Amino acid sequence: MESIKLGLLGLGVVGGGTWNVLQRNAEEISRRAGRQLEVVQIAVRDLAKARARVGHDVVITDDAFAVVNNPEIDIVVELIGGVTLARQLVLQAIDQGKHVVTANKALLAQHGTEIFEAASAKGVMVAFEAAVGGGIPIIKAIREGLTANRIEWLAGIINGTTNYILSEMRSRGLTFDQALAQAQQLGYAEADPAADVLGHDAAQKLTLLASMAFGIPVQYSRAYIEGITDVQDQDIQIAERLGFRLKLLGITRRRADGIELRVHPTLIPSQSLLANVEDAMNAVLVNGDAVGQTLYYGKGAGEEPTASAVVADLVDVTRLHTADPGHRVPHLAFQPHSMADIPVLAIEQVRCGYYLRMTVSDQSGVLAQIAGELAKFDISIGSMIQEPADQGTATLIFLTHVAMERDINEAIGAIETMAIMRSKVTRLRVETF
Amino acid sequence: MESIKLGLLGLGVVGGGTWNVLQRNAEEISRRAGRQLEVVQIAVRDLAKARARVGHDVVITDDAFAVVNNPEIDIVVELIGGVTLARQLVLQAIDQGKHVVTANKALLAQHGTEIFEAASAKGVMVAFEAAVGGGIPIIKAIREGLTANRIEWLAGIINGTTNYILSEMRSRGLTFDQALAQAQQLGYAEADPAADVLGHDAAQKLTLLASMAFGIPVQYSRAYIEGITDVQDQDIQIAERLGFRLKLLGITRRRADGIELRVHPTLIPSQSLLANVEDAMNAVLVNGDAVGQTLYYGKGAGEEPTASAVVADLVDVTRLHTADPGHRVPHLAFQPHSMADIPVLAIEQVRCGYYLRMTVSDQSGVLAQIAGELAKFDISIGSMIQEPADQGTATLIFLTHVAMERDINEAIGAIETMAIMRSKVTRLRVETF
Repeated sequence: MESIKLGLLGLGVVGGGTWNVLQRNAEEISRRAGRQLEVVQIAVRDLAKARARVGHDVVITDDAFAVVNNPEIDIVVELIGGVTLARQLVLQAIDQGKHVVTANKALLAQHGTEIFEAASAKGVMVAFEAAVGGGIPIIKAIREGLTANRIEWLAGIINGTTNYILSEMRSRGLTFDQALAQAQQLGYAEADPAADVLGHDAAQKLTLLASMAFGIPVQYSRAYIEGITDVQDQDIQIAERLGFRLKLLGITRRRADGIELRVHPTLIPSQSLLANVEDAMNAVLVNGDAVGQTLYYGKGAGEEPTASAVVADLVDVTRLHTADPGHRVPHLAFQPHSMADIPVLAIEQVRCGYYLRMTVSDQSGVLAQIAGELAKFDISIGSMIQEPADQGTATLIFLTHVAMERDINEAIGAIETMAIMRSKVTRLRVETF
Repeated sequence: MESIKLGLLGLGVVGGGTWNVLQRNAEEISRRAGRQLEVVQIAVRDLAKARARVGHDVVITDDAFAVVNNPEIDIVVELIGGVTLARQLVLQAIDQGKHVVTANKALLAQHGTEIFEAASAKGVMVAFEAAVGGGIPIIKAIREGLTANRIEWLAGIINGTTNYILSEMRSRGLTFDQALAQAQQLGYAEADPAADVLGHDAAQKLTLLASMAFGIPVQYSRAYIEGITDVQDQDIQIAERLGFRLKLLGITRRRADGIELRVHPTLIPSQSLLANVEDAMNAVLVNGDAVGQTLYYGKGAGEEPTASAVVADLVDVTRLHTADPGHRVPHLAFQPHSMADIPVLAIEQVRCGYYLRMTVSDQSGVLAQIAGELAKFDISIGSMIQEPADQGTATLIFLTHVAMERDINEAIGAIETMAIMRSKVTRLRVETF
């Protein structure tokens, strides 16, 4: 059978990895796909550098639009990242009747609705396994492997940089700044780490997973996003003594009144599988009503792990390339006319457990006053520890049962006005996955 | 679009679960599949019992061949288990041009080649996600999610009964017989536990995974199979002190000279993810050259977890039901004409680490004699502990570096003839996954 013709946009980390894997495993891949996957054109900024890497059998251009408009090309592989230009290129490729494979979570989280609609109208596929969880086939698991289930919730460690930083803070007692500097030295964090440490990258991925889990539109702007820049090492150490470990989790859950969609540092039991996903590894735990909990674990970033997902998409698209669109898996798991209009809940409506740490004046009756304030807001205390602090003060740590975020906010507001307080209240959310 | 018509063979644990899930999640499933999945006929042994369960809208019969020959039916769901009758029914369904979904690992491990050839000749699909790892979409991950990779090895806990027994032996100090009796009381083990505890069930599953990982024919008869019936609780406790945990693993690995295909009790580091898969849970760790290690975890058995995989297959088959066969994923991941003729290695050719425990006469020079015997066979010792035993004897435990099984066998044979020996040598294989 004739080879399928690929056009690559970008030959950076993921583009270079994709090129490597397609060359090295060409035989293994075509034994599976039933035909050759052939890169016929690559768009890059540095022509000489690209030429040195890929040799002379491939057309190289610095005009990305030349690739998306090339009539010979069947599938455009968008690996340049960014949003504005990537959006134009992807839409133009679709308009030219080409299938698209992309690793671009920022693009799809913000413009997924537009892009998927354009693709459906044109009868082409946009595949994006590499956009979430790197080489872990988590999108395939949710879109295809769990179709029997009403998915109840999922929770994932879907940003390797922050998981590495939190792992180092815990195991080596580093501060956030120290761990970040180390991550940057080792190449786990970029020079500008904002997208990772502020939680935006994780929220983009979570938004896509939530859409496929529940059959709701992509709603990145509705996600609650809290990164790890304010995490204090002392809370990691205290939590460890209490049997909990701190992870930056993306959590989405179906509730009677809407969908929770939130990224924030989360305490989970130390012996749980997710708590033991360390270093830069990723994992997603999914709860379906029939299957119960399943977990998917692997490398969430890096040249070849991400390329593994890109190439898996290429094989899938190659298989269904000439098939009637009705035979294909819907972009967001559910048929486009069957998407549900369930609201995304504001963070104030979320329910979980809470860890509250505060420094108070060390005098009698303090504990009763604070417990009384929590009780006013119907917040029930699961456990409490009191530790001596400096100069006539004490540190109190409360672990609450499940409560609503709005009530916790109000209780914290009330507590912080009390005369006995010697600090603000530090709050972390707690889950029992 | 018209509904897809299903015929169920069997309404036992998995059949009943499949019926439940199809009813309860009918809306969620058709929102994904784009059409209704409708059970139109069920074959069972006990008509009255089935009637009470499914009501009056479904035709019930005690003649399974009436279902496979029913011209109205698109997909036959084989959930009766066993081999002889199941084989006849599946082949007859294929001959009638029907697609087949089955959970029957014994059938496919023994007759997979014949069944997949018949299906390819007829242009129909045989889907079997439920045959391995219950609700974990592990077959989809290997067949589709990891197509970019040259898979190097995989290792899995793919029998929940034995994992439960080993977990209880370790955590509660039970003997094998005690843990088995408890597993039977709780319904985790059958009255006749042979297929589970002797390793046959795991070997059937492993054989299918190996075929899809490496593109080799299904070769159940070549698998090395060793169950857990001879596992002694003292070895579990000793291994724990050494930082290892005992699991019944299915392991298949590509070597220069062939494929390892083996099921046996295996010591793995206690802190590894696989070691922490406890109770009746399953997990499979796959190593691909591009993606590195990925892990898939979930419930490996049970009514609805297994039904989750059956229904996922039903949705997949429904999507591709009328598509040209060229658009479908090959049954064993690789195109039928691209299967490789790589030999399966005999157990004597396998390489791994070894744990050797023996009781010897407590006299000077004993350790040197045994170490000398191991050295003769080029077996290098990683660590050793000596413990006092009864009445002038000592227990020696050696952990070797990677060695070839043939050499270990010969060394053990030589050691057991030594005059200082007061016991046979207990041998466990060690891996570092």
